[in-house]
Amino acid sequence: MTTEPIEENPAQHHDKTAKSLVVLNTGDGKGKSTSAFGVMIRGVARGWSVAVVQFIKSGEWNVGEEKIGRQLGVDWFNEGEGFTWNSEDIEHDKALAAKGWQRAADLIAAGDHPLIVLDELTYLLNWGWIDAEPVYDAIRNRPEHVNLVITGRDAPDELIAVSDTVSEVRKVKHAFDQGILAKKGIDY
Amino acid sequence: MTTEPIEENPAQHHDKTAKSLVVLNTGDGKGKSTSAFGVMIRGVARGWSVAVVQFIKSGEWNVGEEKIGRQLGVDWFNEGEGFTWNSEDIEHDKALAAKGWQRAADLIAAGDHPLIVLDELTYLLNWGWIDAEPVYDAIRNRPEHVNLVITGRDAPDELIAVSDTVSEVRKVKHAFDQGILAKKGIDY
Repeated sequence: MTTEPIEENPAQHHDKTAKSLVVLNTGDGKGKSTSAFGVMIRGVARGWSVAVVQFIKSGEWNVGEEKIGRQLGVDWFNEGEGFTWNSEDIEHDKALAAKGWQRAADLIAAGDHPLIVLDELTYLLNWGWIDAEPVYDAIRNRPEHVNLVITGRDAPDELIAVSDTVSEVRKVKHAFDQGILAKKGIDY
Repeated sequence: MTTEPIEENPAQHHDKTAKSLVVLNTGDGKGKSTSAFGVMIRGVARGWSVAVVQFIKSGEWNVGEEKIGRQLGVDWFNEGEGFTWNSEDIEHDKALAAKGWQRAADLIAAGDHPLIVLDELTYLLNWGWIDAEPVYDAIRNRPEHVNLVITGRDAPDELIAVSDTVSEVRKVKHAFDQGILAKKGIDY
């Protein structure tokens, strides 16, 4: 009979309380952003002002979360609108990415939101669209009550280093691999 | 310049549409249930009736999700109330588990909810509290429009086999390991 504590149990014997946490969801599996939106709900349930910055916008994707998030009073910023994606105008995309990061940096520094979700931030770092050091500095030097949830594949080591809790979501099996279309209501 | 499709992008070249999907979140990392609650939001946003069955109840945990879920009209069932956990009365716990699974089986068979979350189901299977075969049969023989999201560590191979999309959440780093207490609004 195994009755080891499960992930949602409190850590009864721990005695430090962090003023805030940086949670990072990375890996090639499904559920990184979805999990971030779950944390968003927790923050809302606690009465926090919550902000979501989406750095990559993919058409119809995530509209469900945005709709419900806005309905729940979340401040929602789509900074990825207008990316060309196909590198036809890379300077345009870099300028958008810089603007998106500036939005996030301003939100973090302002301290008005105890929880800020930075959705798909890793892509901007990995593609070299924004300078990485100012990002790590902003995370390290944030107001002490500001919690961050960051998502995206291939998180750089330095981003892992400045995060408190890091999960890698690994794809074991995916319906896409069997040629099954993404399903509205489940995948988006 | 890497611009490979990210996880939330549609699978443009796939041509099959599943009537429904079984999504399984397993592994030892954080975010399995949190991700399931994110899918719950998606379902609600699509106008679906959504049900959540929680097989394991851990005191104050997940109250944020439950509060918001109920607020959004989700049918929420806490079947884990009353577990003794410490094996003092194992027959009592087994009876509770059987009752909880029966609730889930009835919901699945009824077909009234296009999305049903079965939170922490794997524990009941792994601890031998319920028979596994009826569970796999119920999943395989569900009404074709009923999507399932199942969570919990150490998913049995047979459960992986009956699922369409399986993600393993691996712990890379956890604040608990540095002796930091679980944080209200983030961890629960």
